[in-house]
Amino acid sequence: MTAFSFNKLVIFGVGLIGGSLARALRERGAPGPRGTVIGVGRSAASVERARELGVIDGVAALGDDAQLRDALAGADIVLLAAPVAQTQPLLTRIAPFLDDATIVTDAGSTKSDVVAAARAALGPCIGQFVPGHPIAGRESSGVEAALPDLYVGRNVVLCGLPENSPAAVARIEAMWKATGAEVRQMSVEQHDRVLASVSHLPHVLSFALVEQILEGPDADLKFSFAAGGFRDFTRIAASSPEMWRDICVANRAALLEELDAYTAVLARLRAAIDAGDGATLEAAFARSRKARTEWQERGGKVAAGASPAK
Amino acid sequence: MTAFSFNKLVIFGVGLIGGSLARALRERGAPGPRGTVIGVGRSAASVERARELGVIDGVAALGDDAQLRDALAGADIVLLAAPVAQTQPLLTRIAPFLDDATIVTDAGSTKSDVVAAARAALGPCIGQFVPGHPIAGRESSGVEAALPDLYVGRNVVLCGLPENSPAAVARIEAMWKATGAEVRQMSVEQHDRVLASVSHLPHVLSFALVEQILEGPDADLKFSFAAGGFRDFTRIAASSPEMWRDICVANRAALLEELDAYTAVLARLRAAIDAGDGATLEAAFARSRKARTEWQERGGKVAAGASPAK
Repeated sequence: MTAFSFNKLVIFGVGLIGGSLARALRERGAPGPRGTVIGVGRSAASVERARELGVIDGVAALGDDAQLRDALAGADIVLLAAPVAQTQPLLTRIAPFLDDATIVTDAGSTKSDVVAAARAALGPCIGQFVPGHPIAGRESSGVEAALPDLYVGRNVVLCGLPENSPAAVARIEAMWKATGAEVRQMSVEQHDRVLASVSHLPHVLSFALVEQILEGPDADLKFSFAAGGFRDFTRIAASSPEMWRDICVANRAALLEELDAYTAVLARLRAAIDAGDGATLEAAFARSRKARTEWQERGGKVAAGASPAK
Repeated sequence: MTAFSFNKLVIFGVGLIGGSLARALRERGAPGPRGTVIGVGRSAASVERARELGVIDGVAALGDDAQLRDALAGADIVLLAAPVAQTQPLLTRIAPFLDDATIVTDAGSTKSDVVAAARAALGPCIGQFVPGHPIAGRESSGVEAALPDLYVGRNVVLCGLPENSPAAVARIEAMWKATGAEVRQMSVEQHDRVLASVSHLPHVLSFALVEQILEGPDADLKFSFAAGGFRDFTRIAASSPEMWRDICVANRAALLEELDAYTAVLARLRAAIDAGDGATLEAAFARSRKARTEWQERGGKVAAGASPAK
């Protein structure tokens, strides 16, 4: 963990992700001068709960020019922790009040679309925006679910832009490291391809299985015999429909590429099942088992108390 | 739980499933006269460990005529708890030594192929064979993983045959009820269709995801960013390749039907992603989330200590 101090942090969307960052920066590490954390919501009431819980110090309503100007004045860092589809309207709203020295970052699950939105909204100030993605979550959401140690040992990806100053990227890196996270640099394209593969595609596949059971005959009977394999496979099918709709649309190019490659593998396994070709099936299953087991042994397993939802 | 007494139970394959049945019948419920449990393996040595652990009383080698005859003499119940592909050779081996009063049952994950194998091996004695499937398992296997409470609250399916006497089916039902399981009757075809849907298909889909990642570029990078969604979705991709090869081949007709229906759903979701049709995606995801959440609330969630692997 690295020492990290700040004067003012402004968080747009104080839910699980934003709230956990605020708690981590305030509750972890050596005691020292504490910066101010301001939460901004569509209305002041929506972030009032976070203040009641002591997660943030002050609140501002997004729609109120004076409150927003006050909130952003002298901020070192702004975090966008709202759904990715809101990136462009949020940044457009923020832009007129943004100090030159403020660094803006985000926590969105997709990056190509977020960067395009940021370029459109910030124009020549794009260098102040450092795209980020903390890969952490829980099944529960909202500020009540925020934890000071949510990010411990988790990956945070930063996709530094050519326009970013090294100092701006380093500042956001230091912030995330102070939460206990491991920070890794990637290009926007690489991030979206990797996340499409290990997160977005499995979500689509899991939603699709439940959908297929619902459409077919005997859905109730099938559910009544579903056991542990089904439970784990479909846990992510209980994720937010709105969030996953946005991610699928925002990252469609990379997601379709992974989905098509997956469909090709599935067609090959189908042919082997149809032909009763046990050797091909066993070889494929053995490769998967070996890779999955090695992944787990390398630390893929995370603590049950903070199981990531993404 | 129902009282259940027996004189002699013979288990072919004393691993997790057979060992847990033996432990359940001996360690649960009111103390009373204890029946003898004999384990049979390909060699006596392979079941010796189960005797050392006190799970069974005696052992017999499958290849030794005299030992096998002794083991089966006067047995009330025989349980086959070996891989389903061994059903026919095992029953062919057992048939000459089988008492008229002995009831044979099995624990195989597929039933059409098991019944065909039993008809071929037992001929006119098919009425003595009551097909069964305890839907329980754990990630760990082998007799060391056997638990007396593995079956508590789990479903056991019995697929009674027209040739079975009601008394024979009732006897096997009583045995499983004594372990704490819930016993449900189904036709062979219904069982295979339901299990193809909620167990066999998810396993194939999970294996396929890991296989697809391995085949593509950046496999190591992708694995290094895989988090909780990936972990749960692919837990079953660490299952036994041999077992799942056999299940896929044995249940191919029902599995292909479910797989094709799944592929059709996936193609529809793909088209919606490609078209940026958020409304269709959100509607499908919301249906899945609702069904998955209701399933969980009805008790789909099982205790973490005995998480079923199938």
